Amino acid sequence: MHRVLVIHGPNLNLLGKRETDIYGTLTLEEINTAVRAKGLEYGMQVETYQSNHEGDIVEKIHAAEGDAEVIIVNPGAFTHYSIAIRDAMASVQVPSIEVHLSNIYAREELRHKSVTAPAAVGQISGFGVGSYLAALTAADHILKLAKGTWRP
Amino acid sequence: MHRVLVIHGPNLNLLGKRETDIYGTLTLEEINTAVRAKGLEYGMQVETYQSNHEGDIVEKIHAAEGDAEVIIVNPGAFTHYSIAIRDAMASVQVPSIEVHLSNIYAREELRHKSVTAPAAVGQISGFGVGSYLAALTAADHILKLAKGTWRP
Amino acid sequence: MHRVLVIHGPNLNLLGKRETDIYGTLTLEEINTAVRAKGLEYGMQVETYQSNHEGDIVEKIHAAEGDAEVIIVNPGAFTHYSIAIRDAMASVQVPSIEVHLSNIYAREELRHKSVTAPAAVGQISGFGVGSYLAALTAADHILKLAKGTWRP
Amino acid sequence: MHRVLVIHGPNLNLLGKRETDIYGTLTLEEINTAVRAKGLEYGMQVETYQSNHEGDIVEKIHAAEGDAEVIIVNPGAFTHYSIAIRDAMASVQVPSIEVHLSNIYAREELRHKSVTAPAAVGQISGFGVGSYLAALTAADHILKLAKGTWRP
Amino acid sequence: MHRVLVIHGPNLNLLGKRETDIYGTLTLEEINTAVRAKGLEYGMQVETYQSNHEGDIVEKIHAAEGDAEVIIVNPGAFTHYSIAIRDAMASVQVPSIEVHLSNIYAREELRHKSVTAPAAVGQISGFGVGSYLAALTAADHILKLAKGTWRP
Amino acid sequence: MHRVLVIHGPNLNLLGKRETDIYGTLTLEEINTAVRAKGLEYGMQVETYQSNHEGDIVEKIHAAEGDAEVIIVNPGAFTHYSIAIRDAMASVQVPSIEVHLSNIYAREELRHKSVTAPAAVGQISGFGVGSYLAALTAADHILKLAKGTWRP
Amino acid sequence: MHRVLVIHGPNLNLLGKRETDIYGTLTLEEINTAVRAKGLEYGMQVETYQSNHEGDIVEKIHAAEGDAEVIIVNPGAFTHYSIAIRDAMASVQVPSIEVHLSNIYAREELRHKSVTAPAAVGQISGFGVGSYLAALTAADHILKLAKGTWRP
Amino acid sequence: MHRVLVIHGPNLNLLGKRETDIYGTLTLEEINTAVRAKGLEYGMQVETYQSNHEGDIVEKIHAAEGDAEVIIVNPGAFTHYSIAIRDAMASVQVPSIEVHLSNIYAREELRHKSVTAPAAVGQISGFGVGSYLAALTAADHILKLAKGTWRP
Amino acid sequence: MHRVLVIHGPNLNLLGKRETDIYGTLTLEEINTAVRAKGLEYGMQVETYQSNHEGDIVEKIHAAEGDAEVIIVNPGAFTHYSIAIRDAMASVQVPSIEVHLSNIYAREELRHKSVTAPAAVGQISGFGVGSYLAALTAADHILKLAKGTWRP
Amino acid sequence: MHRVLVIHGPNLNLLGKRETDIYGTLTLEEINTAVRAKGLEYGMQVETYQSNHEGDIVEKIHAAEGDAEVIIVNPGAFTHYSIAIRDAMASVQVPSIEVHLSNIYAREELRHKSVTAPAAVGQISGFGVGSYLAALTAADHILKLAKGTWRP
Amino acid sequence: MHRVLVIHGPNLNLLGKRETDIYGTLTLEEINTAVRAKGLEYGMQVETYQSNHEGDIVEKIHAAEGDAEVIIVNPGAFTHYSIAIRDAMASVQVPSIEVHLSNIYAREELRHKSVTAPAAVGQISGFGVGSYLAALTAADHILKLAKGTWRP
Amino acid sequence: MHRVLVIHGPNLNLLGKRETDIYGTLTLEEINTAVRAKGLEYGMQVETYQSNHEGDIVEKIHAAEGDAEVIIVNPGAFTHYSIAIRDAMASVQVPSIEVHLSNIYAREELRHKSVTAPAAVGQISGFGVGSYLAALTAADHILKLAKGTWRP
Repeated sequence: MHRVLVIHGPNLNLLGKRETDIYGTLTLEEINTAVRAKGLEYGMQVETYQSNHEGDIVEKIHAAEGDAEVIIVNPGAFTHYSIAIRDAMASVQVPSIEVHLSNIYAREELRHKSVTAPAAVGQISGFGVGSYLAALTAADHILKLAKGTWRP
Repeated sequence: MHRVLVIHGPNLNLLGKRETDIYGTLTLEEINTAVRAKGLEYGMQVETYQSNHEGDIVEKIHAAEGDAEVIIVNPGAFTHYSIAIRDAMASVQVPSIEVHLSNIYAREELRHKSVTAPAAVGQISGFGVGSYLAALTAADHILKLAKGTWRP
Repeated sequence: MHRVLVIHGPNLNLLGKRETDIYGTLTLEEINTAVRAKGLEYGMQVETYQSNHEGDIVEKIHAAEGDAEVIIVNPGAFTHYSIAIRDAMASVQVPSIEVHLSNIYAREELRHKSVTAPAAVGQISGFGVGSYLAALTAADHILKLAKGTWRP
Repeated sequence: MHRVLVIHGPNLNLLGKRETDIYGTLTLEEINTAVRAKGLEYGMQVETYQSNHEGDIVEKIHAAEGDAEVIIVNPGAFTHYSIAIRDAMASVQVPSIEVHLSNIYAREELRHKSVTAPAAVGQISGFGVGSYLAALTAADHILKLAKGTWRP
Repeated sequence: MHRVLVIHGPNLNLLGKRETDIYGTLTLEEINTAVRAKGLEYGMQVETYQSNHEGDIVEKIHAAEGDAEVIIVNPGAFTHYSIAIRDAMASVQVPSIEVHLSNIYAREELRHKSVTAPAAVGQISGFGVGSYLAALTAADHILKLAKGTWRP
Repeated sequence: MHRVLVIHGPNLNLLGKRETDIYGTLTLEEINTAVRAKGLEYGMQVETYQSNHEGDIVEKIHAAEGDAEVIIVNPGAFTHYSIAIRDAMASVQVPSIEVHLSNIYAREELRHKSVTAPAAVGQISGFGVGSYLAALTAADHILKLAKGTWRP
Repeated sequence: MHRVLVIHGPNLNLLGKRETDIYGTLTLEEINTAVRAKGLEYGMQVETYQSNHEGDIVEKIHAAEGDAEVIIVNPGAFTHYSIAIRDAMASVQVPSIEVHLSNIYAREELRHKSVTAPAAVGQISGFGVGSYLAALTAADHILKLAKGTWRP
Repeated sequence: MHRVLVIHGPNLNLLGKRETDIYGTLTLEEINTAVRAKGLEYGMQVETYQSNHEGDIVEKIHAAEGDAEVIIVNPGAFTHYSIAIRDAMASVQVPSIEVHLSNIYAREELRHKSVTAPAAVGQISGFGVGSYLAALTAADHILKLAKGTWRP
Repeated sequence: MHRVLVIHGPNLNLLGKRETDIYGTLTLEEINTAVRAKGLEYGMQVETYQSNHEGDIVEKIHAAEGDAEVIIVNPGAFTHYSIAIRDAMASVQVPSIEVHLSNIYAREELRHKSVTAPAAVGQISGFGVGSYLAALTAADHILKLAKGTWRP
Repeated sequence: MHRVLVIHGPNLNLLGKRETDIYGTLTLEEINTAVRAKGLEYGMQVETYQSNHEGDIVEKIHAAEGDAEVIIVNPGAFTHYSIAIRDAMASVQVPSIEVHLSNIYAREELRHKSVTAPAAVGQISGFGVGSYLAALTAADHILKLAKGTWRP
Repeated sequence: MHRVLVIHGPNLNLLGKRETDIYGTLTLEEINTAVRAKGLEYGMQVETYQSNHEGDIVEKIHAAEGDAEVIIVNPGAFTHYSIAIRDAMASVQVPSIEVHLSNIYAREELRHKSVTAPAAVGQISGFGVGSYLAALTAADHILKLAKGTWRP
Repeated sequence: MHRVLVIHGPNLNLLGKRETDIYGTLTLEEINTAVRAKGLEYGMQVETYQSNHEGDIVEKIHAAEGDAEVIIVNPGAFTHYSIAIRDAMASVQVPSIEVHLSNIYAREELRHKSVTAPAAVGQISGFGVGSYLAALTAADHILKLAKGTWRP
């Protein structure tokens, strides 16, 4: 089994209760359940983690070194200013995938800029829980490339 | 079978031959083959199309109305200035997914801005052919939501 | 009869079908009919033309030299970046009038800037088909001034 | 008869005497005469008003409520900074049309931006007195739409 | 009795009639009544004044010197460009409080910047008539501090 | 009794000891005492909270849901970059009021921009402890409006 | 005798009473007296005028046509945004000289930009009443050049 | 014989007829003749091509691979926004030289920026047909360096 | 013995393991050992502290008041956005010295701006562990100046 | 006799020969003669100096300390970037007056900004040799103020 | 023989020794030799000059008046800020050609802007010594045009 | 003995006499004495040099090649615009250290940007003469690293 770590950033613990026009009505636990189930199909054991604390997310990323093979991270509001999380992503060997529930490019100006994305392999935004599911597909691709088992 | 249209923008016909450090060594045909194969797993018939002409892409999008259920579009260089393509995406009922082979946020400043993304459901970048595969997962999610068959 | 050329830019072929809250429910053919009828009142024979291709619009403008006396052009999305169309407008002797269906100054930031307007005699925006009708009035004025028949 | 109010902003009282290369040789009274005559053709009684005082223009717009059916306003220099006039235009039910004698997009940088235009139905610039005449055509269109008598 | 002057800027005379989704349904006179009543509770005699003329507001501020102990000013649209009013506020000894009915930071970009605020003691925005009431509390605090009668 | 939560952001625990020319000589406890006393006059039970940790403030706001009726928050330095706190304010049903001791518009450029203000009902700045007192007046107004007991 | 018109903009009526660290302790009348006296030495009859109303200044400039030979104008706060005054200066044949008491380039950012200066012959700032006196020297030079009596 | 491809962008087909104060009176065919003649002196067979279509230019550059040894390209208006042409230049092995008839740095602001130049070996602007002739000298140098036959 | 506090910001706990091309191969403990040893030569007892939590660093700075005589702080990623740390540095009496291992001006644009530096006595960047050693020299100078024992 | 130093910056040695439409037909020596003559009227002995070398101008300003009572400096092109000259002006006790022959605010964008002006007492621009003459009037005013002999 | 002056700016004396990956391995003397030899082929006597002093380059340009027929100038670092050199180029009758060894548009942002180019006839960059050789071709063209001996 | 070159930029010859609130009361000679003395402790022979001429500093840096092992440079005002000095620093093999007496990040906006710093190993600012002393420590570290004698 591949080990995949999913990190949810600030305010995502309120999912399904807050601004449902933007973020949808699924709760975080429902998302986690869906992601874990889909992960199993890919042969991945998915650990999920949520924090509203920038420092805790930095340290969770540090701890992933040697523990997870891919990090899927939704930095939430931190996307737009946390260079600390960007540096954490860059300082571990584990590849990371940035995801967003909403299409950040279709929202307010201040959400268009991601300071964390340059440190990720890639970014997926706009598909709700589908962003996480697509991230699993991307993770599967990354893992196959790393093992040399991918074929066109 | 769901019908999915994949559109590749300018210069992508040279894939695998040009700047392989950025875009990888797969040719466009190899990518199309992989996408078609993966699409079948999702019950999707994938049509692929490439053009170096902005106007042709605009009209291909127009023609998708009533013909395709999802458009996956890699606008290539047009991403950064073609408001015509953005408007085409917004003017049809078919949902579109924007993809990029490379992580555009980790490249030159002029590639950070997407004028087309606000008209897409979402955007996926940075995973090479994996961006297209993840887009199929996202398309599958969109289609299930539309049919009301998705369950967390 | 004066000869007037009306050029419609990209996506305008979908008028009446797309984003009707912004662009109204008239189809392009209905607009053309209204413009041709109104033109006759001013003693003008109106030719209409639509293209989604920047290069075709450039060449249509070139061809107007010696053929039309006024060009009425709605560059659509090209308004905001096509310096090629701007240069085409500047490189022929035929005066051009820029029109827009919607009030571009009341929309997204990226639609506020017109790169083509400085090459036109003037610009009319925001009145739906009325923008074209007002353009005919302006064209009538331009033609009378050119002939020296205008009186306050 | 429809009632239409035409408002001319600061320095326009000097028309025909000042910077005639930019604004032409017609005096304000000649423009008013032409506009009133043309208005009659459309079944409009045109009242004209000029002021160099921002506050007076604000209050003239307020007073138009219940008195005029369309306001045609050339805010002159106020175009570029008078948010007060913009707010006045937005706070009455009477639709307004912004006009300019010169093509403001072909002049100095500081004249490219209109803060008032977003509160107008639309904007017409660059045709000299023809801008006012075209505005009457637009006003005629607005009035017909309001009455439901317009036909393509 | 302390003397407090309340100044309302341009277009505020239309309150309750215009854009009620933004500014509410209270008329200016109802606001004045509420402010006067609340002022009496604080031992303040409140004079109210409205003008659409920048120059009149400048001179009303000048005249407050030696006449009022606090100025509460809602500069309306002038907030965003009238350096003349800012200088007037700075050139009298009377402390001023800037108020806004709506939350200017949650509106269009051009309303985010206040050129007058740096010349005020402070600014209150977003509470409708409550902004004026809160300003009275702030004025009460300023007056007590000035008299040395405030205790934590 | 209405329940009101007052949140003080980073470095405010040093109030009265630091930069007293900007922030005054009152300690945080003196401010809390004054606010609690004034709150009682409005029939409000005021809870106060201070933290230097962005994540703790985010979670304190989350916890206010169903516990407080109004949040008065002085985000301190977080005002200028914590989109996480902005999102927290937007994700709960409890209305929040942003306060600042100093007039942030009269200080260094980097303090002019509030990223949190758009998620608040309104903002009050510049009156020292008076900003909190005025916020209580605003809170009282919000509560009366919510109950429908406010009369002009 | 040459006729010279001196125009003082908003808030200058408070000179000598307001912000004396910036503007000095001379009153406006003392400045006028000094300027009139110095003007006589140059064979100039100096008329002085002060207004806090932009529109009045615009009209005073209009009225100078055919009445004054040089206008010396201190637009005060209007310097930074009144395009109406700039246009007035440009629309009369009388040359104008812009003066400022303080060195506007050594003050706040928003005072560095003069929108009126491009319409003046030149600008003098920073010398207190000396700015007006130097303007008389410049006016003398302009008049001699116009008459062709200047010799190096 | 070395093979050199010369590409002329949009509107250049009108050379000698349009804006002759900027672009001179030579027609495109006269320029082509001069360039072919001069090329022969350098042992180069020069093919010339003009298009108003961005996509055609992209594909002409693609086709040059294995066919031409140097591309001399005057992208015309495309210089300022066509990232597609820039990418085409970067995606073939053939070195390209960017030329302009006029000095783009001495014209309007929007012509100062070249998005294509970074993908060229170098850029030559301002010498009319001389820009093309100088480009042949530069091409000659590039070819000699490639063959190792250049000597200082 | 003088007491000096050294604070290391986020991700610095990974030193010597991460991005060694930028940050070098020394571990944080090796840096601390070197700094402590060098400190003793200057008669300084050096305490070292590392945290990935902004709030903890703020509070460590607060706690230094009355405990340390100089703070040497490497804010890491917080350098570029943590106004909270800047305010903490400004709110204690202890002088602080900002250090960086790498030359932040030779890296990505977003690392060029330090929001914390204005609150420090000075800044040292680019010398690896040498930045800390140089900071001790600067600290020694600051302490001698404070005691009045420095001689040129 | 008062001692006044006049410094002319780069390229001013070519005056009267270069760009006479901008700078006039007077030679530098004719200007110097006029300034010296006018200076005598004010009881000033005027020394003139021209250099094309930034460093020489810096040192000429240094040398003026204790030698001249006022410096009149036309920094020419250095106005727009020489912080070294600005610092030299700020580092001597002698007050300086910045002059320009042309109205720099009516020329190209890059000439609008003066980096030296903040270090001068004031600035005079646009009057040709009249700028220098007006500067003498300003210098006379400065000297009288310094001696306390100025009367309104 | 035509006289051509070649000016090399700061640091170019180190050519061939410094940053050879950017500037190549040719020494300045080798470049001069190549340029002189090539010049002879065009019937030009080439004088070369290098200086690290802005003022010396300004004066060398002045001295070229009446001495050289064309100036070829590589302003080096001065390209990006020396308005003094730009003005010198504009103030002599001799046409100048700006050259750069490297493609300045493919380097750091601060090298993209040329303040000197608008004063040159044209600019050539990116071809190493080939830039100078191409400049000779351009110079030859300029001279032929001036003599009227050029034929298409 | 290691050879170290210390370069002081423009206006630093006036140290101790000018703006002593910013730069302190030490003269340049006192600083040089302190630096030489401290250098001896590190086994360094320190040569000092001051110039107000950019070109001279460029050439002094060139001459350091093969003569000094480290350059300590305080470019003064040149820090903010002299790309020539930056290029000189980059074009020699000798490592350079940039120092500033004052904390440039706590001063006017135009002093925040260093164009020279990217070419230095690192930068030290804000400690007065202590900046130079700390630079010696950094130089010592650089030399030990180069010799391989440094131990943590």
